[in-house]
Amino acid sequence: MKLIKPLVGAAAIAALPTLGLAQDGPTPGVNASTDTVFILNSLLFLVGGFLVFFMAAGFAMLEAGLVRGKNVTMQLTKNMGLFSLASIFYYLIGYNLMYPLGTWSVEGVLSGVWGPGVLEAVGITADAADDYGYAATGSDFFFQLMFCAATASIVSGALAERIKLWPFLIFTIVLTSVIYPLQASWKWGGGFLDEMGFLDFAGSTVVHSVGGWAALVGALILGPRIGKYKDGKTIPMPGSNLTLATLGTFILWMGWFGFNGGSQLAMGTVGDVADVSRIFSNTNAAAAGGALTALILSQLLYKKPDLTMILNGALAGLVSITAEPLTPSLGTATLIGGVGGVIVVFAVPFLDKLKIDDVVGAIPVHLFAGIWGTIAVVITNPEASLMIQLYSIAVVGIFTVVASGIVWMILKATMGIRVGEEEEIMGLDVTEMGMEAYPEFSKG
Amino acid sequence: MKLIKPLVGAAAIAALPTLGLAQDGPTPGVNASTDTVFILNSLLFLVGGFLVFFMAAGFAMLEAGLVRGKNVTMQLTKNMGLFSLASIFYYLIGYNLMYPLGTWSVEGVLSGVWGPGVLEAVGITADAADDYGYAATGSDFFFQLMFCAATASIVSGALAERIKLWPFLIFTIVLTSVIYPLQASWKWGGGFLDEMGFLDFAGSTVVHSVGGWAALVGALILGPRIGKYKDGKTIPMPGSNLTLATLGTFILWMGWFGFNGGSQLAMGTVGDVADVSRIFSNTNAAAAGGALTALILSQLLYKKPDLTMILNGALAGLVSITAEPLTPSLGTATLIGGVGGVIVVFAVPFLDKLKIDDVVGAIPVHLFAGIWGTIAVVITNPEASLMIQLYSIAVVGIFTVVASGIVWMILKATMGIRVGEEEEIMGLDVTEMGMEAYPEFSKG
Amino acid sequence: MKLIKPLVGAAAIAALPTLGLAQDGPTPGVNASTDTVFILNSLLFLVGGFLVFFMAAGFAMLEAGLVRGKNVTMQLTKNMGLFSLASIFYYLIGYNLMYPLGTWSVEGVLSGVWGPGVLEAVGITADAADDYGYAATGSDFFFQLMFCAATASIVSGALAERIKLWPFLIFTIVLTSVIYPLQASWKWGGGFLDEMGFLDFAGSTVVHSVGGWAALVGALILGPRIGKYKDGKTIPMPGSNLTLATLGTFILWMGWFGFNGGSQLAMGTVGDVADVSRIFSNTNAAAAGGALTALILSQLLYKKPDLTMILNGALAGLVSITAEPLTPSLGTATLIGGVGGVIVVFAVPFLDKLKIDDVVGAIPVHLFAGIWGTIAVVITNPEASLMIQLYSIAVVGIFTVVASGIVWMILKATMGIRVGEEEEIMGLDVTEMGMEAYPEFSKG
Repeated sequence: MKLIKPLVGAAAIAALPTLGLAQDGPTPGVNASTDTVFILNSLLFLVGGFLVFFMAAGFAMLEAGLVRGKNVTMQLTKNMGLFSLASIFYYLIGYNLMYPLGTWSVEGVLSGVWGPGVLEAVGITADAADDYGYAATGSDFFFQLMFCAATASIVSGALAERIKLWPFLIFTIVLTSVIYPLQASWKWGGGFLDEMGFLDFAGSTVVHSVGGWAALVGALILGPRIGKYKDGKTIPMPGSNLTLATLGTFILWMGWFGFNGGSQLAMGTVGDVADVSRIFSNTNAAAAGGALTALILSQLLYKKPDLTMILNGALAGLVSITAEPLTPSLGTATLIGGVGGVIVVFAVPFLDKLKIDDVVGAIPVHLFAGIWGTIAVVITNPEASLMIQLYSIAVVGIFTVVASGIVWMILKATMGIRVGEEEEIMGLDVTEMGMEAYPEFSKG
Repeated sequence: MKLIKPLVGAAAIAALPTLGLAQDGPTPGVNASTDTVFILNSLLFLVGGFLVFFMAAGFAMLEAGLVRGKNVTMQLTKNMGLFSLASIFYYLIGYNLMYPLGTWSVEGVLSGVWGPGVLEAVGITADAADDYGYAATGSDFFFQLMFCAATASIVSGALAERIKLWPFLIFTIVLTSVIYPLQASWKWGGGFLDEMGFLDFAGSTVVHSVGGWAALVGALILGPRIGKYKDGKTIPMPGSNLTLATLGTFILWMGWFGFNGGSQLAMGTVGDVADVSRIFSNTNAAAAGGALTALILSQLLYKKPDLTMILNGALAGLVSITAEPLTPSLGTATLIGGVGGVIVVFAVPFLDKLKIDDVVGAIPVHLFAGIWGTIAVVITNPEASLMIQLYSIAVVGIFTVVASGIVWMILKATMGIRVGEEEEIMGLDVTEMGMEAYPEFSKG
Repeated sequence: MKLIKPLVGAAAIAALPTLGLAQDGPTPGVNASTDTVFILNSLLFLVGGFLVFFMAAGFAMLEAGLVRGKNVTMQLTKNMGLFSLASIFYYLIGYNLMYPLGTWSVEGVLSGVWGPGVLEAVGITADAADDYGYAATGSDFFFQLMFCAATASIVSGALAERIKLWPFLIFTIVLTSVIYPLQASWKWGGGFLDEMGFLDFAGSTVVHSVGGWAALVGALILGPRIGKYKDGKTIPMPGSNLTLATLGTFILWMGWFGFNGGSQLAMGTVGDVADVSRIFSNTNAAAAGGALTALILSQLLYKKPDLTMILNGALAGLVSITAEPLTPSLGTATLIGGVGGVIVVFAVPFLDKLKIDDVVGAIPVHLFAGIWGTIAVVITNPEASLMIQLYSIAVVGIFTVVASGIVWMILKATMGIRVGEEEEIMGLDVTEMGMEAYPEFSKG
């Protein structure tokens, strides 16, 4: 039983362009049957993958709950549409772009643009475990796809209640087929940020800040909702259904166990499963920390606890721990997440002061806490360099801002991205969709 | 480690009447410890099983969201009731009927009627892995039960807003104890359709079309809702809560990974886990394809994207890929699912033209897309014969139509299946249930 | 491959204070690689753990759906707050208190109070599987934490619509850091109830009755809602959203597979995975039994089936099987759960007669069915003694009543636990939270 066989050698990685290695790959396993290791690694991707899939439902419920009733059908349609488009365009373009042929190269990237994702054959034999070496390509594709879709979900909330459907969906296509995969390849495809030593375990920067930057640029170009900022004041526009927003938060919280835990990328050795276990526990601790600091701070600042702050605090805690959910102790994880909650409580009114109208709080949660989480890696991981972390945050940020800014500007110049004034005031559901989400319930 | 031992021999199957083999059983595993194979197979059933269980919640939310507010409590009660009855009657009768003693035989079937499902003993020893050979009976029962319950869930949506509670529940008893298991035994119990070469991986026909046929017959006998068809026009009766309908769709989508992935029936070898991974990816691709064609088509046909079409498009995509989620490539899976979305967009108004009132669109989604999916097997699986697929669709269809027609007619003649006119107009919640789902919210 | 190596020896347990053993630990595994056993055991905790985590969402939806619209934001805030506090205080105090150093001892308990939970190091080697012997500490912590949080969730529903936020959260801190872990240590930490032979597989007593007792004492001290009992009559105060209450029930039902199945504590042998499979099936059967008896009984008693009774019946069925989900047959499990449903139907009006105002029915479901389930162990488990079961129920009950009574009384005397009369009538959302859950929907 003591086969001494490196699970994933460098050669195996080079030979496997379609098998993505988020993070640095698993520890070589020498203590279990290779086949069992292969199976358990694949299983981690499958279970992690369906948990991250469910985050699509979480985002949909969170956003539907935080927009006003007159825009709910639109928001739901965007969420169904963006996930479906992500599924198809990540397959058609993104996956191979993210894991370019062999080691990272321009040619590899260009070739990826034209090569749709290919799974391994049906019923591969056990010997294939040696060739594939690591986990089933299908399981890896499934898992990676969900990260790409999550990035797109982040954008939809911030721009709610005023953006047109089709320009948003076209942006989603570009984001999921090019912007996300290209920058992700710099870290998870073995590109220059990875070689430099950038650490981002499950994507505080690669996923969350990218979604956040794209949302920020979109919000700036789109402008705030009519009536949101008036005479120097911010007019509250309360969400229509806090129960569903809370449900969405709990679903996202659960999905995050797959998001961070699955990013260990391996479960076939004692060390890997123990690490996955640490990650689950730390992820939960950070969410709790974020929710609690938001609860306490909103009580202290506003004399009343603010449920939407608490929900976003939990999510910010989750984003904060995503760049390094493994090395912190439970206590440190709680604190890292807790800072995320603090960020939310201060960033939400701060954005309003700048008249940046982020309907659901996606920018504080995913961008600001994403940056914080990426920096926080240096607290517990001795391999991390603050300078490299900051440099990588900046590189990814500048790229995403420029790329998505260009796309938003083109969309604005060609088809227009914002609904008409009357449509916005009457609500997108009646005017754009012709279908109300709650047709029987009178509005107050 | 290279034990050469067929995982499931023909003899083992014969000796194991209570262990159901949906599809053709796993590839013999020769590369991992037999015990580990047994454990991993069982684990697939357990994880797949709880995912399919959650589809009960998905159906409940979808249906509650698509009926009008005055009938929601009734719809929820039906969903709780049907799942509970399925659990008990599939145990009492259905499970053994579906997997008749030894090879399929009339005596085996008859004996099943009187033999409740029996799990293996507590704490079986490792040697039992040789006897059981495959996976824990309890895990198989758990998994198979969820398929039976899903079949019953399909019926409840189509007949909503006018059927009485108790006749519906009695129909559920017959469906889950006899109709579903008997026809399922013809394929998954090793019966004549299976011997003939009929291919239906996870049940486009065995599960979805059966639910769809039973719903169609019920809808015909029950007649449309009052006021639905007037002067040759179809009067829209919009669902009360599209957010929950969307949540239901996402839950069903997630559950389908268990539905199709678990139907590989094995995860204990490299080949099996790679196949399960393919299935997860293809299932997702088909759902995305169905949602997108429905999105695009409803935009083109009606100038506005129709969220309920998109939701049903995703579900139709899932049903379409269910008969063969393994052999297609990602692109083909997307297209197969995409055709499902097309079917929905055209079939919903088509049924209305025929004055068949299907409240949630269950007949297009589960019956029409189920037939399409069963036919589509021939596209990618060279072992499939179009004639045998069509023949099997017809056999299962005729049987289900006749059997459920008889049951519906008996119920109509004895206790009546439809509520009174006044009850229907006032809503079933107040009149039949004495309890409103949203008592505080005024109706528009 | 036939390594004969006890998986968990007594010595290993003694050396592993932080590794909790709910129930009696796994059967020694002699048929699979020790590493694989370790991995699979840990995986059971992780999957079981995220399922039990999701119960937090289930409780939140159940409670938000069963309170009136004016108190929903408060109820959601409590649920987010209590889970977050449980996460932190179980880590800071509870976990080590529950599994005191070495064998159970007063010094061990006292040391636990000051020792926060510590996970094993990052990237442990395979040899560590020998040291840890059983499963990853992180996975065990994650799983056990969710049980502690569930206990706190039980309390929040019963006291809804009138308790202040902060006293409730302070009670949660004491409950999750001391009351729950201390009594749990008596059974699951190897304490005196365990040594005596008390059997409580997954916590009908240790979790559910403890939550129920704490809720009962709280309800008594708090008093009923204004207007609930008037002139000897009970005034119905219907829940605002039965769809979400139903969703919550389905989520809890699914979570229970993790709750009971995970409490097998091991999945690394054929016997263990077969037992987990039995448990999944029995758990489902008991829920179905409870839902059905409540459906039938409410029809017989009130001439109309009562959805809230059916939901609570399913939950009572689940609580009833929790003390012994392994040994019953499917039929017996259905009956044990069915009695749970009967208890609910009679106990809800009974509590009303005593003017004990339990908003969501938590006391019948968790306390009464919890007691029944603990007694029902003797029906199928020959190792159980009725006297020891009753004695343990009483000991745990008296301890919880006294301890939580003291905490509630102190809270009442110092900061007050009940909102003002005007606040209660206007609703806690406007007065205490300044935020409505459904601001756009007019109240009837």
